[in-house]
Amino acid sequence: MKNIYIIGVGLIGGSFAKDIKEKNPEVVIHGISRKQTTLDEALSLGLIDKKAALEDIKNADLVILSIPVDASEKLLPTILDHVSETGLVIDAGSTKESICKVVENHPKRKNFLATHPIAGTEYSGPSAAISGLFQNKTNIICEEEKTDKELKEKALVIFNALGMKIRYMNPKSHDKHIAYVSHLSHISSFMLGKTVMEKEKNERDIFDMAGSGFASTVRLAKSSPEMWTPIFKQNKANVLETLEEYIENLIQFKNMMAQDDYESMFDEMKQINHIRDILNGIN
Amino acid sequence: MKNIYIIGVGLIGGSFAKDIKEKNPEVVIHGISRKQTTLDEALSLGLIDKKAALEDIKNADLVILSIPVDASEKLLPTILDHVSETGLVIDAGSTKESICKVVENHPKRKNFLATHPIAGTEYSGPSAAISGLFQNKTNIICEEEKTDKELKEKALVIFNALGMKIRYMNPKSHDKHIAYVSHLSHISSFMLGKTVMEKEKNERDIFDMAGSGFASTVRLAKSSPEMWTPIFKQNKANVLETLEEYIENLIQFKNMMAQDDYESMFDEMKQINHIRDILNGIN
Repeated sequence: MKNIYIIGVGLIGGSFAKDIKEKNPEVVIHGISRKQTTLDEALSLGLIDKKAALEDIKNADLVILSIPVDASEKLLPTILDHVSETGLVIDAGSTKESICKVVENHPKRKNFLATHPIAGTEYSGPSAAISGLFQNKTNIICEEEKTDKELKEKALVIFNALGMKIRYMNPKSHDKHIAYVSHLSHISSFMLGKTVMEKEKNERDIFDMAGSGFASTVRLAKSSPEMWTPIFKQNKANVLETLEEYIENLIQFKNMMAQDDYESMFDEMKQINHIRDILNGIN
Repeated sequence: MKNIYIIGVGLIGGSFAKDIKEKNPEVVIHGISRKQTTLDEALSLGLIDKKAALEDIKNADLVILSIPVDASEKLLPTILDHVSETGLVIDAGSTKESICKVVENHPKRKNFLATHPIAGTEYSGPSAAISGLFQNKTNIICEEEKTDKELKEKALVIFNALGMKIRYMNPKSHDKHIAYVSHLSHISSFMLGKTVMEKEKNERDIFDMAGSGFASTVRLAKSSPEMWTPIFKQNKANVLETLEEYIENLIQFKNMMAQDDYESMFDEMKQINHIRDILNGIN
C-alpha cells in the first residue's frame, strides 16, 4: 500500500491520515477536496503530502471517502469508475443503507467496503483531526461479502493497526440501531441547546449557572449541520421513529410531574440508572 | 472555625469535607447521617473525623447541609433551633425558593446562608466525594442580606479557599434559571437513556455501537433518583415550563424532518451552534 487518497480531509479523513502516516511513514497521502482552502490547511497541518484531483485516484491503492453522506452517495459511483482493479475504496459515513444501495450494481462493487468508524468529536475541518481517534473504537462493516477478499484483508490490516474493534452488520440494522445511539442524541442535544438559548437571552446567566452536566448534555449541539443534515435526511424513517418515542417518553414524564406522581418518577429514574452498567463498557 | 458538622456526607458534603480539611487541618469534621453505614463509610474513607448526632450541632461553628432538598427543607428549622448564636448553617441544594421560604420567619434566620454550589458528578454517596470539586465552580448565594454579616464573611472565606466564584441571585430567579441549565438536562438525559434502552433490548448492540457522543449526552441518566425526585418536586412549575418548551422544539424539528424541510433543519442547527461560544466559558 503506497498511495492513499483521502477525499475530505476533515475530522475523520484527517485523523485517518495522521494515524496511517504514523504507522506507515512510507505511504504518500494525497488529499482531495472541493475547497482549495481546505487542502491548503491540510497541507500546512501536515495531514497530507500532496494535493490531488479526482482523476488521480486511478493510482490509488486506497481511497478513504470522508465527506458528508449525501456527497459520498453522489460521488462514490464516479470514484469506483476511476479506481483501478486493485484499488480499495472505503467510506466512513454514519448511514449505510443508502450508500450500499447506490453502488449495488456497480461493476466495481467489489472494490468498495462500506464502513462506519464510530469515532469523532463535535468539531470539524482539518484542524479537528487528532491522532489516536480510532483507538479502541468500534468500526462497523456492512455487506463485507460484497467486497473482494484480498482488498477487505488490506482494510482490516489498517483498521487493526489503528486499534479498531470490528463488527459486521447489515446496512438496515446499522441504520436502525445507530439512529438510537447516535442520531437521536444529536437531536436531543441540539434541541436542549435551542431551548436554553431561547429562554436565556441574557447569556451571562447561562454562562454562570451552567455546570459540567449541562456542558456534557449539550456538547453535541456544537456539531456540524453540514454533516448532520444529510445524515438525518438519509436516515429519516429511523430517526423519526426514535424521535417519536423520545417525545412520547418526555410527555409521559411531564405528565407524571404535572400529576405530582413523584413515586413513578422515582421508579422510572431508578430503572434508567441501569444505563450505568451499559456505559461502563463505553468509557 | 474549629468544629464543622456535615449533615449528609455524600458527593457534595464529602467533597466539602475533603477540601476544608485539606486547607484547614486543625478543624474537626463531624459527620451526621440518617444511616450508620454512611457514617461508617465516611469515617473509613477519612472524610470525617467523628460521628455526631443532630443535638451536637450546638457546638458547631459551621453546619453544612447536603442532603436531598426535601429532607433539607424539613430539617433546617430544627437545625437552626439547635445551632448557637455564632454558628453558621449553609445548605447546598439545587432549589432555593422553598428552603428560603421555610425559614423566612425563623428567629435564627440570620444564622443561615442559602447557597448552591454548581458542582457535582453523576455519582453519589461518600465514595463519590472528590478533592477540588468546587475549584472554579460558581456558587450561587441567595438572600445574602438576610444572613448575619460576620457569619457570611466566614462562609465567603471558605468558598474562596475552595476556589469558588460567587454570584448573588434571588431564590426565584435561581430556580427559574437553574431549571433550564440543569434540571432540564437531567430529564433530557434520563429520557434519552430510557428511549434507547427500551428499544435495544439486546444490550450488546448499544454497547458496541454507542460512541462517546451518546455517553456524554446520556451521562446524567446515571444520577441519583433520591436526589432528583425532590428537586423536580420543589421546582415543579419551572421544570414543567422548560419541559414543555423542550418538547415543543422537538416536535417542531420532527415536523421539519417529516416534511423534508432540510433547509430549515440546517438553519436551525447552524443557529444553535452558537452554543459553542457559551460553552467555551464553562469547560
